[in-house]
Amino acid sequence: MTRRFKIAAIAGDGIGKEVLPEGLKVLAAAAERFNLHLDFAHFPWASCDWYMQHGEMMPPDWKEQLADMDAIYFGAVGWPALVPDHVSLWGSLLKFRREFDQYINLRPVRLFEGVPCPLAGRKPGDIDFFVVRENTEGEYTNLGGVMFPGTEREMVIQESVFTRHGTDRVLRYAFELAHARRRRHLTVATKSNGIAISMPWWDGRADAIHADYPQVIVDKQHIDILTARFVLQPDRFDVVVASNLFGDILSDLGPACTGTIGLAPSGNLNPDRTFPSLFEPVHGSAPDIAGQGIANPIAMIWSGAMMLAFLAAGPNPDPRCGEAHDAIVAAIEAVLRTGPRTADLGGTATTVEVGDAIAARVRG
Amino acid sequence: MTRRFKIAAIAGDGIGKEVLPEGLKVLAAAAERFNLHLDFAHFPWASCDWYMQHGEMMPPDWKEQLADMDAIYFGAVGWPALVPDHVSLWGSLLKFRREFDQYINLRPVRLFEGVPCPLAGRKPGDIDFFVVRENTEGEYTNLGGVMFPGTEREMVIQESVFTRHGTDRVLRYAFELAHARRRRHLTVATKSNGIAISMPWWDGRADAIHADYPQVIVDKQHIDILTARFVLQPDRFDVVVASNLFGDILSDLGPACTGTIGLAPSGNLNPDRTFPSLFEPVHGSAPDIAGQGIANPIAMIWSGAMMLAFLAAGPNPDPRCGEAHDAIVAAIEAVLRTGPRTADLGGTATTVEVGDAIAARVRG
Ligand SMILES: CC(C)[C@H](C(=O)O)[C@@H](O)C(=O)O
Ligand SMILES: CC(C)[C@H](C(=O)O)[C@@H](O)C(=O)O
Repeated sequence: MTRRFKIAAIAGDGIGKEVLPEGLKVLAAAAERFNLHLDFAHFPWASCDWYMQHGEMMPPDWKEQLADMDAIYFGAVGWPALVPDHVSLWGSLLKFRREFDQYINLRPVRLFEGVPCPLAGRKPGDIDFFVVRENTEGEYTNLGGVMFPGTEREMVIQESVFTRHGTDRVLRYAFELAHARRRRHLTVATKSNGIAISMPWWDGRADAIHADYPQVIVDKQHIDILTARFVLQPDRFDVVVASNLFGDILSDLGPACTGTIGLAPSGNLNPDRTFPSLFEPVHGSAPDIAGQGIANPIAMIWSGAMMLAFLAAGPNPDPRCGEAHDAIVAAIEAVLRTGPRTADLGGTATTVEVGDAIAARVRG
Repeated sequence: MTRRFKIAAIAGDGIGKEVLPEGLKVLAAAAERFNLHLDFAHFPWASCDWYMQHGEMMPPDWKEQLADMDAIYFGAVGWPALVPDHVSLWGSLLKFRREFDQYINLRPVRLFEGVPCPLAGRKPGDIDFFVVRENTEGEYTNLGGVMFPGTEREMVIQESVFTRHGTDRVLRYAFELAHARRRRHLTVATKSNGIAISMPWWDGRADAIHADYPQVIVDKQHIDILTARFVLQPDRFDVVVASNLFGDILSDLGPACTGTIGLAPSGNLNPDRTFPSLFEPVHGSAPDIAGQGIANPIAMIWSGAMMLAFLAAGPNPDPRCGEAHDAIVAAIEAVLRTGPRTADLGGTATTVEVGDAIAARVRG
C-alpha cells in the first residue's frame, strides 16, 4: 500500500510566488514518475498581501489548519515596503519554526559542476558540507525592551535565550550527522571571547555532547574567523553546527561561496515528527528582483527534494520518495552542467524555463 | 616645536609577541626619517603569562599607568590553553575599549596589488572599503546568567545593550566618514527580521542620523545576506557600519576576501581624545602558528601607520606624523608587490624578514 502525503504549499511574498510553482511542477513530475501520492493544499496566508487585508500574517487557526500536514513547502516571506520585516517574519515563518518545534535547520552547502565559483581555483568536491543551525531559540527573540524611549537616555535591552534542552538536541543532531553520515569532522561556531555568558556555556555543552561521540573531531571556531575560513579554506568543513544567528549567517555565506544563494535549500526539521517540518529556499523574497520572472528556482526545487528525503526516512514511509529525491537532485545537477541558467548564474533563462528543464529531466 | 608622543607598547600573547617588534622597528625607522619623537613605554601585562603569575590580566592601577599615553600600540591577547578566552579578553582588550571609551573600531579592507585574491577575477581597486564597528556595547556584554545550573532545565540569558548615546555616535561617525572622505555610500548592517527589538531600533537610529546626511546613499542589509555580498559583490561597498558583533564578523570576513587577515589593521578610536586610542591588528594571538616566526607582521605595521595618522589629526599634532603614515603605507604596498612574503601569502619569509624589508623602505 502506498501512502498519501499531505503537503501544505505556501508561496508567501515576492519571488516566493515565482519559485513555488516551479517546485510544485518538479514534485508533480517526480510523483508521476515514481507513482507517489502527494496531495497539496494551498494557503494564501503567511504573506504580506494577506497582512494588508487582514491585519495579521495568518488566521488565528493556522496551527490547526497545518497540524496534520506531513510537511510544509514554503516559498519566502517578507515585503518591507508594506510590512516591517520583524512583523512579517515573527508573524509567520518564525512562528512555524518555533510552534512546530522545527529545531533543526539543515542547510547543505555544495559547489556544483557547471556553476562558476566566486572563490578562485575551487572545484566541485572542494565545497561540500552541512550547516546545522539551531532554529527555535538563541539570539532570535522578542524579549527585552526600550528604556527612556524617545529621549537622549534611550536604551534597548535584547535578550538571547539558550536552554540546555534546545542546545543539546541541536548539538547531538550535528554530532550524529557527522558521525554516522559524514566525515566525522564537526566545526562548532562560537564567540566565547566576546559574548561572555551564553557562548562559553555553549562551548561547554559541545564538550559534554562530544563525550558521546569520541570519534568525531571537534574544531571550535569563533564566528569572525570562521566566516574568514569559509572563504579561505572551504574544503576544511564537513558539518558546522551553530546557534540560530550564527547559523543564519553561515548558511548565506556558505552558499555565496558556491556561486549563488539561489541554489541553497533548507529543511526546518522536527526530527521527532510531532509537527510538520518545513522546507524552503534559504534566499528570501528578494523584492529587488521580484516580479521579473528571473529568480533562480533551484533552491526551491532542491528544498522539495529534501522534503521527499525527510518523508522517506519517516515511519511508514514510501520508499519511492527516496528515489524521487535522487532523481530531482540528478536533474538539478544535469541542468546546472548544461543550462538553462538564470541571471544569478550568468544566464538569461527565466524562472519557468529552468523549472521546465528540471521537470523534463525528472520525467526521464 | 615638535611634540613628543608617549605610546604604550603591549605585546600580549602568541604572535602578538612576534609582530609587535616588527611594528616598533618600522615606527622607529619612520621616526628617524621624519624626525618624530615617539617615546615607547613597554608593559608586560594584558597577557596570559601575566595572568598565570598574578591571577589577573592587568595590575589594579592599569588605568592610571596608561591614562596619559597618547596611544596604545597593541599586539594580540588570548591563550585559551592557559586562560579561557572570555577571561583573558574581558580582563584586558575589552576593558581598554570600554573604559577608555574607544567607541569606534575603524577597520580598512583593501585588496593590494601583488596579493593573490581568493575571490576569482577581483583586482586591486575592486575591494576598498571601511568597516566602522561599534566598540563599547551591543552584543558584547557579560550581562545575564544561568538558571537551574547543572540540571536538565538549565537555561542561559545573555543580554545585549544598545544605547542611543552609543549607537548614534558610531552611526554619525560612519555617515561623516562616508560623506566627507569617501564615496558617500553607507551600508548599514542589521538583522531586524530576526532580532526583534534591538535591530529594528538600530535601523530607526540609522534613519534618524541619515536625516543629517541626505547626500549619503544608505543601503540596509541583513547580516546574513551582507556576508554573502562581501563575497559576491565586494565592489559595492564604501563604508559599512555595524554593531559590535556584526562589525567583528565583517572585519574578519572582509580582510579574508582580500587574501589574508594577516594584513588587516584597526584603530580602536576615542575620537574625543579623552583617553588614549588603541591600535592593533585584527587578527588574534593565533596559537596555531605562534612561536614559529612565520606570522605576517603587516597588520601590526599598518596599525602603527593608522596610529600616526590619528596622532596627526589631533590637536597640536606634528604634521610629519601624516607623512610618516603615508611612507609606511607606501612601503607596505611596495613589499606586497615585490616580496618578501610570509606563508599566509604563499611565501616563505619570516616575520622578521618582512619587517626588515618594510623598515628598509621606510628609511628610504
Ligand atoms: C579577541 C576578540 C574579543 C576580538 C573581538 O571579538 O572584538 C577580536 O576578534 C577583534 O575583532 O578585535
Ligand atoms: C527571513 C529571516 C528571518 C530568516 C532568518 O534569519 O532565519 C532567513 O534569513 C533564513 O535564513 O531563513
